[in-house]
Amino acid sequence: MMILHGHWRSLAAMRVRIALALKGIAYREVSVDILGGAQFDPAYLAVNPQAVVPALETGDGGPPLFQSLAILEWLEETHPTPALLPADPRGRARVRGLAQILAADTHPLLVPRIRERLGSQFGADEAAIAAWSREWMARGLGAVEERIARDGISGAWCHGDAPGMADLCLYGVVGGYKQRGGTLDALPNIARIAALCDADERFAAAQPMRQPGAPKA
Amino acid sequence: MMILHGHWRSLAAMRVRIALALKGIAYREVSVDILGGAQFDPAYLAVNPQAVVPALETGDGGPPLFQSLAILEWLEETHPTPALLPADPRGRARVRGLAQILAADTHPLLVPRIRERLGSQFGADEAAIAAWSREWMARGLGAVEERIARDGISGAWCHGDAPGMADLCLYGVVGGYKQRGGTLDALPNIARIAALCDADERFAAAQPMRQPGAPKA
Repeated sequence: MMILHGHWRSLAAMRVRIALALKGIAYREVSVDILGGAQFDPAYLAVNPQAVVPALETGDGGPPLFQSLAILEWLEETHPTPALLPADPRGRARVRGLAQILAADTHPLLVPRIRERLGSQFGADEAAIAAWSREWMARGLGAVEERIARDGISGAWCHGDAPGMADLCLYGVVGGYKQRGGTLDALPNIARIAALCDADERFAAAQPMRQPGAPKA
Repeated sequence: MMILHGHWRSLAAMRVRIALALKGIAYREVSVDILGGAQFDPAYLAVNPQAVVPALETGDGGPPLFQSLAILEWLEETHPTPALLPADPRGRARVRGLAQILAADTHPLLVPRIRERLGSQFGADEAAIAAWSREWMARGLGAVEERIARDGISGAWCHGDAPGMADLCLYGVVGGYKQRGGTLDALPNIARIAALCDADERFAAAQPMRQPGAPKA
């Protein structure tokens, strides 16, 4: 059985959780206490020397996979049904581009090591760090909203009428944005897709607050 | 002919430039003056509403592609020879993971919009911003070095004996790191790969300081 090394709050682990659910792959999750520094334990560094989550043990004895988007691509190549990417190269590029606006240009700006550094290097307090995080999520979500509104080729989801790699990246950022006081009022396409995610247990069950270890509401 | 919208200093545009050279694809580059705000001109927003480079017009009349790693994947799918990813899914996951350590977890922390925000929100001066950038590049390069040293499956390059998607991401970060005073003394595998890049015009000609618009020496 596959083993996902994650953490309740990690939006990157959440992406993999959703992909595993969409593809119907059995796995168990091991929580790495990122907020408590457990990613630096030698036992975890043996799993992922970068000291971040997620990592995925694939159950075949090979070394754990690392980096969420690389894991998603591996899942897509080895468990192709249902597909998380469209079949045509241009469509695949669009979905990957949307995913990367969120997973490369947005989320890495908000992770614990960045928040810690903003405090230690610049003296940022909790409110300033929240404002920083909200700003980058607003920009990332705004860029995706603009793309969806303008491209005119999204269906119900980011690309067509089935959920895919962009949607599962989007759902995590939407959750983080709302948690820090952001609203989707000016982002109607994203609000529509987020509502579809909320109504789909394969997405909703992957949310941070529904994971073991999360604080009670 | 393909048109790459780039900027001399952009490490993300540099990645695409190298991939186009490795694959022997003819293109011309249009410079978008990111430091002067030209990414917000309506003409460029029509190319890429996210207001970032690179974007790639593919010459077939379709909408421009966006996000460097999505562009690299599109190039790989449509122009498969020479390959920038290995053939096996696990190897592909490793190369994509290495690329993402640099292109998702490292480089987005250093781009002009972040440097601007560090100044405007936290009053960071040039030296503080350089220290911030150097820190994240050191961590990203350190993670890649650790992987290469430990995995024991790299050849001359990051993965095997031909250059690929991880190497072209690596070369840009190495250049940025050295430019900000970093050294590769503790990173022998990366130093070896960077030397291979320096000696290969397909890599070396893509460097920021060799682009039109770059300051003299």
